[in-house]
Amino acid sequence: MRVITLTTDFGAADWFVGTMRGVILSIHPRVQIVDITHGVRAGDVRAAAFAVAASCRFFPENTIHVAVVDPGVGSPRTAIAVQTENYVFVGPDNGVLSLALARERIKAIFQIRNPLLFLHPVSQTFHGRDVFAPVAAHLSKGLPLQKLGPRVRDFVRLDWPKPKISEGVMVGKIIYLDNFGNAITNISGLSLREFGSERCQVSVKRKPICRIGSFYQAVPIGKPVAVPGSSGFLEIAVNCGSAAKVFRLKVGDTVTVRRKSRQ
Amino acid sequence: MRVITLTTDFGAADWFVGTMRGVILSIHPRVQIVDITHGVRAGDVRAAAFAVAASCRFFPENTIHVAVVDPGVGSPRTAIAVQTENYVFVGPDNGVLSLALARERIKAIFQIRNPLLFLHPVSQTFHGRDVFAPVAAHLSKGLPLQKLGPRVRDFVRLDWPKPKISEGVMVGKIIYLDNFGNAITNISGLSLREFGSERCQVSVKRKPICRIGSFYQAVPIGKPVAVPGSSGFLEIAVNCGSAAKVFRLKVGDTVTVRRKSRQ
Amino acid sequence: MRVITLTTDFGAADWFVGTMRGVILSIHPRVQIVDITHGVRAGDVRAAAFAVAASCRFFPENTIHVAVVDPGVGSPRTAIAVQTENYVFVGPDNGVLSLALARERIKAIFQIRNPLLFLHPVSQTFHGRDVFAPVAAHLSKGLPLQKLGPRVRDFVRLDWPKPKISEGVMVGKIIYLDNFGNAITNISGLSLREFGSERCQVSVKRKPICRIGSFYQAVPIGKPVAVPGSSGFLEIAVNCGSAAKVFRLKVGDTVTVRRKSRQ
Repeated sequence: MRVITLTTDFGAADWFVGTMRGVILSIHPRVQIVDITHGVRAGDVRAAAFAVAASCRFFPENTIHVAVVDPGVGSPRTAIAVQTENYVFVGPDNGVLSLALARERIKAIFQIRNPLLFLHPVSQTFHGRDVFAPVAAHLSKGLPLQKLGPRVRDFVRLDWPKPKISEGVMVGKIIYLDNFGNAITNISGLSLREFGSERCQVSVKRKPICRIGSFYQAVPIGKPVAVPGSSGFLEIAVNCGSAAKVFRLKVGDTVTVRRKSRQ
Repeated sequence: MRVITLTTDFGAADWFVGTMRGVILSIHPRVQIVDITHGVRAGDVRAAAFAVAASCRFFPENTIHVAVVDPGVGSPRTAIAVQTENYVFVGPDNGVLSLALARERIKAIFQIRNPLLFLHPVSQTFHGRDVFAPVAAHLSKGLPLQKLGPRVRDFVRLDWPKPKISEGVMVGKIIYLDNFGNAITNISGLSLREFGSERCQVSVKRKPICRIGSFYQAVPIGKPVAVPGSSGFLEIAVNCGSAAKVFRLKVGDTVTVRRKSRQ
Repeated sequence: MRVITLTTDFGAADWFVGTMRGVILSIHPRVQIVDITHGVRAGDVRAAAFAVAASCRFFPENTIHVAVVDPGVGSPRTAIAVQTENYVFVGPDNGVLSLALARERIKAIFQIRNPLLFLHPVSQTFHGRDVFAPVAAHLSKGLPLQKLGPRVRDFVRLDWPKPKISEGVMVGKIIYLDNFGNAITNISGLSLREFGSERCQVSVKRKPICRIGSFYQAVPIGKPVAVPGSSGFLEIAVNCGSAAKVFRLKVGDTVTVRRKSRQ
C-alpha cells in the first residue's frame, strides 16, 4: 500500500485539505494519505521545509511526500517532482523541498508540466487541488516520473544558516518554534558531540540561560534546559513550560554554546 | 472502496470527531473517512454549507457527505439523507446541505427516523455520534435510503444572496473568509466573464481597493488584488498577506465591481 | 482490520503526529489510525485521560488506544500497555490511561521495556515516535503483550473527584471545558437519575444559574441550561453560546444541584 504525505499552510478551518484528499482518492482509491501538518503559518516556506525534513525519513520506502506552501501559485514559478533513493518529493520549486532533499540521495528531478495529469480548468489559486493532488495520485499508481515533464538539473535551495564554531564557542540560530514553545536551533546533535557538550553554558541573544541536559525533566519544573532534540538539533526548552514565551524567543535569534573552562 | 466525508463544528480539541470515526469503523471497517473540516465556527451553518458545496464534487462517485453543524440537536428538528445523481448527503435539515444540493441533481429525499440504525441510548446532545455516524456507516455498506424513514418532498434552504447586476456595475457580498484572509464573494466566475471583467475596479464597503488579476502575485507583495478563486467565485486577496485583516473585512460586507469606461 | 487511536498534546502545527503515523505504517501498512485529539493543552494529563475515557468504548473490539501526554518523557518514568476485555491501552504510566481503565475489565498490565521494539537511537524527547508508535504497530500485528516487558500489578491513577450527595443537594465539580464552551461536571447521569433531577436548581460557585433540561434548545438562545451530556455527565451549556465564557467557568469550579421543595 503506497503512502502520500501532505504538508501545507492550508489550515484546518476550510475545505482545502479535504478537497485534495477527494481528488487523490478519485484517482487512486487505495492509497494511504497522511497529514504531516497543515498548520504551517501562511506562506512560511522555511517552516514547511523543516517539517518535511524532520519527518520524511520515518515513512515507508516509496512514500510520496507532497509539500504545498506556495505563495507564487498561478505565477510562472515551476513545480517539480524529485526521485530520491527512498522517496518521491513533489511541490513548487521554491525551496520547500530543499531541506529534506539536502539529506537524501537524489536520482532525478523533473518539472511538472504535463496538463493531461491536471484537473481542468486549472485554477490560478489552488494548485494543491488541481496539480499536486492529481500528480501525486498518478505517481502513487505507478506513473513514471518521466511522464510529468522535462528532466532538469537543479532545484531552488533555501539559504540555511550554519553554526559558526571557534575554540570553545558555537554560535547558531533558532530555526523553529514548536507547539510546546521549544526553540529548535541549527546546532546539530552531531556537531554538539564533536564540540563536547558537557559543562556548557547556553545563551540566547547573549544572555546565559541554561546548561545542556538530556531530557526536559533534568531541571525543576519551570526551569530552562537545552536538550538534544528529536529532530537532530539542540533545542531550548522549559520543563512543563514554553521557552518561547518565557524568554520571548523568535526564529533567527542567536544561540551561543560556550564550553566552560575546567578550573 | 466507499468514502464518507465529515464536516462539523466539533473542533480539534475534544474527542468528538474521533468518536464518530470509531462508530463508523465499528459498523464498516473498510470505509475511507475524510475530514472536510471540523473548524467551522460553532453553529455557523452557513460556513459549513459553503465548505460542503466547495468540496463535494471533488470526491469519487457514491461518496457519502455528512455535515453536522447542528445547534438544534435534541430538539424536534428533522434529519435527512438526500440521494443525488452522484452522491448521498446526510445531516440535520437546517440548510447545512442546501448549498451543495443547489448544484446537484436530486433524486430522492428521506427523513432519518429509523431507530434500529441508531446508537442507544441516543444522547440529546451528540447526534454526530449516535445518529449520523451509524447512519452513514450503514449507507456505506449498501443500506438503501428507503430504510432510513419516510420519503419527503423538500428540505430547508439557506437564503443565499445573489449579486445585483446593472449596467456597468455588479454588487455582491462577502460570503466567506478563508484561512489566508481571502474574502470570497458571491460573484461567480461565470457572471464575471459575462459581465466582462477587464479593466474593472473592485470596491469594498464603497471604497475602491483593487483591480481584477488572475493570480495572487499579479500585484506586488502586500498589495490587494481580486482574483477568480478556486471555489468558483471572485475573491479579494492581498499578495502574501491577509485581506481580511488589512481591510477589516467581514462576512456580509458589500463588494462592488465597476467597469471602467474606455476613454 | 485493526485500529490504533492516538491521543496527544502534540498540536496540529508541527510534524509530530504525522511522524508517528509514518512509523506505524512502516511497521504495519494496513492498520487504521484514528486521531482522538492532538489538541490537549500541553502536559494536561487529566484532559487527555478524559478524552480517552469518553471515546474508547465507541471503537471496534481489539482497538489499541495510545495516549501520549508525557511531560516526564526521557526521565525514568515507566510506560505501560494494559490488556482489558475489549481493548489494549498504551501510554506513559502517569495516569493518562487511568480514567478509561476505571471502566474497563483489566486482564493484565505490562511495562514497556523491550528495546528490540523501539526506534533507535531512542530520543529523550519524543517517545511518541520512538517507543509508543512502534510498540502500538507491533501489537496491531499480533505481538503478544508479554513481549513488551515484565508483568506488573498496578498503574498510576489520577485522583478523580466524586460528587458529594446529601439530602436534597449534590455537590460536584467542573472537570472539562469543551470546544463549545460546555462545562462537563463529575456528576454522572446515573447518579442524577437516582437523585431525581426534576425541578432542580443548578448553581456554579454558589450562584444559581439554571434548571436541568434535556437538550440545548430547551431554553431560549443565549440562556443557560444543564443537560445530561453525551459523555455520561451533567454539563452546563448556553444555547448557541459558550457557558465557559458567559459564566467564566474553570475546571475545578464547584457545581451544586439542589432539589426544589414541592410546595
